[in-house]
This record gives sequence, C-alpha cells and structure tokens, in this order.
Amino acid sequence: MRILIENIKELVQTEPGTDRKARVAGKAMADLPSIKEAWLLIENGIIHSFGSMAQIPGDIQADEVINGEGRIVLPAWCDSHTHLVFAAPRDQEFVDRIKGLSYEEIARRGGGILNSAKKLNETDEGLLYEQSVQRLEAVIAQGTGAIEIKSGYGLCLEGEMKMLRVIRRLKEQAAIPVKASFLAAHAFPPEYREDHEGYLRLIIDQMLPRVAGEGLADYMDVFCEKGFFSVDETARLLEAGWKHGLKPKIHANQLHRSGGVQVGVQHKAVSVDHLESMGEEEIEALKGSDTIPTLLPGAAFFLNMHYQPARMLIDAGLPVALASDYNPGSCPSGNMNFLLSLACTQLRMTPEEAINAQTINGAAAMELEQEMGTIAVGKKARLILTRPAPSVAYLPYSFGENWIERVLV
Amino acid sequence: MRILIENIKELVQTEPGTDRKARVAGKAMADLPSIKEAWLLIENGIIHSFGSMAQIPGDIQADEVINGEGRIVLPAWCDSHTHLVFAAPRDQEFVDRIKGLSYEEIARRGGGILNSAKKLNETDEGLLYEQSVQRLEAVIAQGTGAIEIKSGYGLCLEGEMKMLRVIRRLKEQAAIPVKASFLAAHAFPPEYREDHEGYLRLIIDQMLPRVAGEGLADYMDVFCEKGFFSVDETARLLEAGWKHGLKPKIHANQLHRSGGVQVGVQHKAVSVDHLESMGEEEIEALKGSDTIPTLLPGAAFFLNMHYQPARMLIDAGLPVALASDYNPGSCPSGNMNFLLSLACTQLRMTPEEAINAQTINGAAAMELEQEMGTIAVGKKARLILTRPAPSVAYLPYSFGENWIERVLV
Repeated sequence: MRILIENIKELVQTEPGTDRKARVAGKAMADLPSIKEAWLLIENGIIHSFGSMAQIPGDIQADEVINGEGRIVLPAWCDSHTHLVFAAPRDQEFVDRIKGLSYEEIARRGGGILNSAKKLNETDEGLLYEQSVQRLEAVIAQGTGAIEIKSGYGLCLEGEMKMLRVIRRLKEQAAIPVKASFLAAHAFPPEYREDHEGYLRLIIDQMLPRVAGEGLADYMDVFCEKGFFSVDETARLLEAGWKHGLKPKIHANQLHRSGGVQVGVQHKAVSVDHLESMGEEEIEALKGSDTIPTLLPGAAFFLNMHYQPARMLIDAGLPVALASDYNPGSCPSGNMNFLLSLACTQLRMTPEEAINAQTINGAAAMELEQEMGTIAVGKKARLILTRPAPSVAYLPYSFGENWIERVLV
Repeated sequence: MRILIENIKELVQTEPGTDRKARVAGKAMADLPSIKEAWLLIENGIIHSFGSMAQIPGDIQADEVINGEGRIVLPAWCDSHTHLVFAAPRDQEFVDRIKGLSYEEIARRGGGILNSAKKLNETDEGLLYEQSVQRLEAVIAQGTGAIEIKSGYGLCLEGEMKMLRVIRRLKEQAAIPVKASFLAAHAFPPEYREDHEGYLRLIIDQMLPRVAGEGLADYMDVFCEKGFFSVDETARLLEAGWKHGLKPKIHANQLHRSGGVQVGVQHKAVSVDHLESMGEEEIEALKGSDTIPTLLPGAAFFLNMHYQPARMLIDAGLPVALASDYNPGSCPSGNMNFLLSLACTQLRMTPEEAINAQTINGAAAMELEQEMGTIAVGKKARLILTRPAPSVAYLPYSFGENWIERVLV
C-alpha cells in the first residue's frame, strides 16, 4: 500500500538523512526544518521518501494520491503525559472550584484524586475500556500519534491492575503506540493516610512485582509533592521501580519547589513533568542530564494557576517537551492543538519551539524518538495534514479552530 | 415542516410563558431554568411547543424526529461583538509579539489595525465576501445562532462602504441574523494622525450620511481609548450617529479607565464592550442604565493580558454578556464553546452565568431578545444539540472537545 501526498505547501519537521534527532534543546528549538512545495511517499505505513516537488521522481506509483495543495504536513503529536483511563468526569468539582472551594476543601469532601479512585474501583473493567477507547479515538482524530497513559486511580492492587490491563488492551488495539506508567504513588488512599510506610510497602512488595511480572508497565511514576509523596519516599519508590526494570517518569514541582526535579534526575528519570515551580537549582540539575523537562500548561489553564516558565528552561538550553495531562480533575482535555496555542500565547514559546516540544521532544519523553516525532525515511508515517493554512504560525494562532483535515496513523 | 426532538436529557434556558425575558442580571444570572427529560417541537423554524416527556401529547405529528437521549438542548449562542469581515490573518504579528515586540512597536512597523486596513483596502469585494462567508459558516457550525459584525478596517469612505456591503450580503444570505456596526472610528488612519478633526469631519459629514442613507448599519461604534478616540471625540461621534438613527455600541476600557463606559452610558449605548479596566465609577454608571456590559475574554487570553472583572460586575447586579471579539489581531477565534470554558475557568463565572451571558444577554446586546436567546414558544428555533453529556457544567468543563452534535438554525 503506497500513499503519495503531493504539492504539499510545507512539509514540516523534516530530517535530511538517517542520522536521527534524539531531541531538540535550547536555541535549536527555534528551528523547525521544512521543505516548501514538497511531496511525501508512504509505503505500508512507513515514510518511504520525500522531497521537493521540483525534484519529484517521474515514476512514483501510488495506490492513493492525496492533494497537499495549500496544506501543511507535520508529524502527529506525541503526548507523553496523560491519565486518559478514568471512570467519570469531575464536572461538579469544577463548579465547586468556581464557587470558591479550595482544592483542599474539595479533597476533604471526597473530591480530587480519591474521587476518581472511588469511581474507578466501582467501574467494571469492560466499561472502563469502552470509555477509554472512545477518548483515545477522539484525541487521535485531533492529531495525537503516540500517547503515554498512567494508572493511579486504583490506589489498591486490584484497581491499579485493572487500569493497567485496560491500558494494555488499548496498547494492543490502538492504531498508535501507547506507553504505560505505573502511578500507584499518585496519592495516599484514606486507609494509609497515617501509614505512609504501609502504602509504600504495598506498592513495593505487592504491586510492583505483579505489575512488572505481567509486563503491564513501561515506566514508574510518583507524584512528588508536599502533601503527597516526599523526596525520600519518591527515591525509595524509584529505586524499587528500577529493580523491576521500570524507568522513572515523574510528577514534579507542580505546587512547590519540593526537590522533585532533583530526585528525578538523580534516578535517571526519562522525564520530570509539570514544573510550574522552578528555580536555579532545578535548572542546574537538569543541565547535563538526559531527563526531559515536560510542561503541562493545560492544567495551569484549567485550574487558573501560574504557567510554567518555559522561556527560562529553553533559554537555559534544555529540551522542553509539552504534554496534555489529560485527566478528569485538572485538565479534562487531550487536545494537543489547543495545547499548541496555549504554549504560544501563555508560555511565550514560538510556534517552532512548541512544535518541537510536541513532536520530537514528546517522542523522546516516551523513548519513541527512533520511530516518531520527525519526518524521516524509515520512521512511522503518523502525520497531520492541515486544511489550507497560510503558515505554520497560523496553527497556534487560530486557537479554537479545527484546522486538521486528516490524520494518518 | 415540523421537527420533534424527544427524550432530551435537559432542555436548557426555558421560559414557561410568553412574558419574555429581556435580559438576566446579577444574582439571577446564576439561574438557568431547564426541563429534564423534555421534548421540543419546531414548526417552520419556530419553537411551537415544549415540555416534560411525562406530559408529551400523544398526537404529535412531525416530519423529522431527533433523538435527544442523553443530550442537552440549549439556545444557539448570540455573539454580539465580532470583526468577522477581514482580508487576512495576522499570524506574523502573533509571532512578533511572542518574540517580545510590543503592540506599539508592531503598530510602528505597519502592524495592528492599520495592517488590516491596508489589506482590506487592497482586497476585492467579492473575495472579501467569500472569505467572510466561510468564517460565518464555520462559527455557525460551532453553535453561533446570531452575530454582530463591525466595519472598521476600511478607515476611508470606500473601504468602510465595501465592508458594510459585505456585511449586508452576509445578512441577506446567512441562515442566522446578522447585525452591522459602523466602526470607522476604530483607529486614525495615517493621513489623519495629526488631524483628528479632519477624520471626525470625514466620518460625520461624509461617511455617516452615506452609510445611514443606504441602510448599511444598525449601530454606531467607536474605539474609545487612550491613543485612539478620546471621550470628547467619542461623544461627538455618538451624537452624530444618533442623528442618523444609529444607536451606540462601543469599545470601552480595554486598556485604561478612559471614561469610555460613562460616555457610552450617557449616550444610551446598547452595550459597552471589553471592560478589562473597571472601577466603582464605571459600575455606578452602568447601574440603572439599559447598557449591557459585554466582556471579551478571548482577546485577553490571546494577548495574555489580564481578564475582565466579571465577578465584580455580576455581584454589582449587572447583566453581563460575553462575546467572541473574533478578529485577526487580538482574537482570531469565533468559537463560542471555547469562550464558555474561558469564562468559567478564567473569569470564574459559573456555567449558568456564562450560558446566560452567551444567550439571552448576548441577544439583548443585539436587540434580538424578542426572537432569540431562550427556549420560548414563538421564538426562532436556533438551537444547539450536544453529544451525550453528563451535565450542563460538562460543556465548559470539557474545553477543547467538540461536544456539539448538531446545530439547528
């Protein structure tokens, strides 16, 4: 099966050779290589070849020819941080917050992560899968071409296993790659509120061996934050994860400069995510590490909190990624197109920086950079074809508009 | 032609009798009357009858029956402030701003309103109409059921007339009501920068008689702001508009507390729009007037400026409306569904308040409250049918998601 896209106005995020980009950092994020007036040939779902229309081979045979006139083609989004598997929206808490209840008060009333955990544990696995697959299909239609999904609404052995089995089914059935992170350390369940040691033992001694034994997770995640898991608890959990072959990928510095970034870097985390609260020490820890700082501005938008200091991180030379944080409590949207607008308007990232952050750097934050995230020969042809658009900048500029014509995954 | 929507999960913004709501103010904005498990009958585009499924007449005949199961039905959005007719996007200025150029610097480089004016005056009327009708169809698909559109990118007799003729064609062709505002006083064109009197004379003596004579405008608009039109200039223009039968509907207090609200109220403006900068005097001026304070948070979002003090206005008992401000410079989106999310997340309006602001109060800000803005017998059946949704709050909650199944206009 060969698909040719011809007369593409601009083919974005191209790599000339096969010496693959691993990630793009700092100043280089401002560059987005592209070919204007381009063609692209896909063979059996793989990028076979591409180039300038001026040099298109005369003998290309294709089963389908797509008209790219006036349109932009770019790699599909790589969404490296989501909680897409959940049992119910939390629209009532949203109203409570508007009316002035604090996050703490909502939690005291049974809201927050514990609310999601209660509902998840009451929900049948088959129904959970059905809801999740609908959400996954919706974000694929919005251009997501690879996704990470976390557990963390079980907070008990059975609930966590149920979520991870749902994620495995998504992985098996989905048209796009799915990575699974084990996040039992999302919050302390009520019965362990005064017994942190007990919950850590449960995770380390009982959950981890089962999860790893059944190959249900790719990564180990911890919500390292005041009132959640301390730096020391996080370190113990990440070490335990490593023993079972799970690399860390953690929640850090959403509310406070709690040491989350440093403990993540020390334990060779693939990424540290959130990063609303950052300073010099965190930046220094990230420099020279392989850990990818991943920003989740959707949650800052939805909760009306301050945004991540993206410019500080980019100006420090770091490889910033952007992810949706799709979840029912703090970011009920997995729309990466809106995220692109948010990054440009609120975080003052340029369109080129934001696209690098949502493609190659997002891919790297899921260790998928060898098969995704750029237009390169041999990579998977997971692509977004836009409607006619005047420029790449038009995509984040026209927030609220659906400028996607077609998603190829 | 009769259309029956049955088994509606919730029919929102209903009025029991024919004693029509004119607008909803203050505390009353928190109420959104609705009928759960409802039916609605449309006859030749008019709301014929509606009620609870428990009391549905047994003998309803309809040409089409729509299944409302699990779905919410609400009045289509009334967008009372847009600049939808423009010649080109300004995506390059968007990038310049991200890179740190100020609005003033961009204006000095030929950007801003004068950029739009230059492009508009170079663009053929037929092409301008084609572009505009596409934008109008796109926002109708996103649930807009009535719209106001301004001139103001001509800034010369011919350009303003061209824009207003395009708006008239839209009015004649569109499936929804279109109101036209005459906004030659949007900015001083370069040739009149040092000759304000000259431009005022041009508007008052030459443009207004032509515009009014040909019946091209419903309202008189002025951008009352430091560096644009002063309070005195605004007063002269509004008085001149009134002489030609054009009621005022003005831009006020976007950047400064410039007296715009007060001059609008003094001249019995239908609405004063923007209102980022408000204080006690402005609130006092609005109280007891018929002028509708209209908030445009899309521009504050896109320009990353502070939002309008919606709570202060509502708590003062005022009838707040929300509108998109769709324009190529400061808000390149006419998506009223996203506006709903913005109002709730950033302005801390409740879902009920925001829906009142985008339906009945938006209708009132275009003097369309007798035919639009609520579900009432005899009103036009311009409606949004959502996809299955758990609650009204879910609509603003799920930002970035397209939760519209069908728009009836």
